[in-house]
Amino acid sequence: MAIVGYGNIGQFALEAVEAAPDMECVGIVRRAGGAAIKGYKTVSDIKELGKVDVAILATPSRKVEETALKYLALGISTVDSFDIHTKIYDLRETLGKAAVAGGAVSVISAGWDPGSDSVVRALMQAMAPCGVTYTNFGPGRSMGHSVAAKAIDGVKDALSMTIPLGTGIHRRMVYVELEKGADFAAVEAAIHADPYFASDETHVMQVSSIEALNDVGHGVNMVRKGVSGATHNQLFSFDMKINNPALTGQVLVCAARAATKQKAGCYTMIEIPVIDYLVGNREDLIRHLV
Amino acid sequence: MAIVGYGNIGQFALEAVEAAPDMECVGIVRRAGGAAIKGYKTVSDIKELGKVDVAILATPSRKVEETALKYLALGISTVDSFDIHTKIYDLRETLGKAAVAGGAVSVISAGWDPGSDSVVRALMQAMAPCGVTYTNFGPGRSMGHSVAAKAIDGVKDALSMTIPLGTGIHRRMVYVELEKGADFAAVEAAIHADPYFASDETHVMQVSSIEALNDVGHGVNMVRKGVSGATHNQLFSFDMKINNPALTGQVLVCAARAATKQKAGCYTMIEIPVIDYLVGNREDLIRHLV
Repeated sequence: MAIVGYGNIGQFALEAVEAAPDMECVGIVRRAGGAAIKGYKTVSDIKELGKVDVAILATPSRKVEETALKYLALGISTVDSFDIHTKIYDLRETLGKAAVAGGAVSVISAGWDPGSDSVVRALMQAMAPCGVTYTNFGPGRSMGHSVAAKAIDGVKDALSMTIPLGTGIHRRMVYVELEKGADFAAVEAAIHADPYFASDETHVMQVSSIEALNDVGHGVNMVRKGVSGATHNQLFSFDMKINNPALTGQVLVCAARAATKQKAGCYTMIEIPVIDYLVGNREDLIRHLV
Repeated sequence: MAIVGYGNIGQFALEAVEAAPDMECVGIVRRAGGAAIKGYKTVSDIKELGKVDVAILATPSRKVEETALKYLALGISTVDSFDIHTKIYDLRETLGKAAVAGGAVSVISAGWDPGSDSVVRALMQAMAPCGVTYTNFGPGRSMGHSVAAKAIDGVKDALSMTIPLGTGIHRRMVYVELEKGADFAAVEAAIHADPYFASDETHVMQVSSIEALNDVGHGVNMVRKGVSGATHNQLFSFDMKINNPALTGQVLVCAARAATKQKAGCYTMIEIPVIDYLVGNREDLIRHLV
């Protein structure tokens, strides 16, 4: 494996590779000038690492396509946690062609949502084809909403917590650290008016330090009530409380393992047998898990 | 599809086929002398039904191997909800050879446990490879324990309810309807001594009618606490409260759909991509579920 990008997710992905008995990290790819990572060859071009089976892309979602296309053309498989839900299918089409051309595999949107949650959502729909599923996130920090709040004039730093209210409705608790002389009332009004927040119940609070609020815990509660055959009121729920980047790093590593077992092409997690994400021989896994 | 066996599971499987927009039931296979099912060709030999893509085996687990071998040799794919956990891998080996020889597909142990629970168990293990998963069943009737209690001298009918106590430990609430003149104390002692009950907390109660207690609701609570990468205390849980035969019938139908999409061979549910269990085209499913 190579880890590409060494921010929060990259660091946790490396820990997951180190914990995996069937994998080896052959190096870290960082932008030129990034500090070397102790114990690992740190390069700015993946070609300097020699043979790489899978590149784990721990880059922002908007960089995934460009990076994956480059690696797939080199015959290096890629995995990512691309999380812009509306663009996943198009990315799958684009990377699919490149993967087939390069004789490699790309597993996309392999985080927890999209990712492992998608597998549970699909399974719940199979178990009760008619019905409604609600995905409730949090409590936990929303990266997109935090960035949107931070972009507002007068905001030095911001954290937007997602609070689940049930049936897929969320409250936004927005904590802001202001720049000197900024007017809290003006910032509060601007946040309420921002498209990221305008349609949700949003509370804005001023704090002296965002850093003091930093907690990467997150969670999800997925519920489905539906119909199996002709039988109503079948009830399903899935809950987790997790360290967010640690789970993302782990799922990326599972997807990297699965990438080595698929035919050339691009896959979302629901298109891969769950057993392929796991360490161990097939007989043992079937005997212990089925 | 053909439905093979028309007990509880067969009836619910038929309802699930009827609810599936991509399937048609071409007939029911029953033992010779079984009553005809309204609206369906009812036969005692599957060959009388003409072309059958998949036979849904709604037979007792102990009849699965014999029936599946016969159908696979005819090139008819099979699905079953074989639930003897210790014998699943061996069944997979046996049916795998027959399926390849017949150019057909067999999906085994496709109920809820083994079955859909197995998929969740495997996914939880992927998300936190180090840790412990507990599967807690109930409250709901245990078929095996009910049959064991009914086999005891003096018992006319029996129902054993499985009550989850957490960490995979279960209480058995055993309701017995006695034969005339039977001694309750003797029956109670015999149940406590039976290997099915000897190691669990077991309570035996005499009732005047088992039929009056009949409720096919069941449930499961699966929990895992484990480690993603190097990060401990990752918490996962999956819960469901369901009509037991209705969910089994639905999962069988999902497995039958998936059977038409696999290469010849035998599969457990964790070896098949979850998307293959679902109705609908791939693009729509990916856009809506991932």
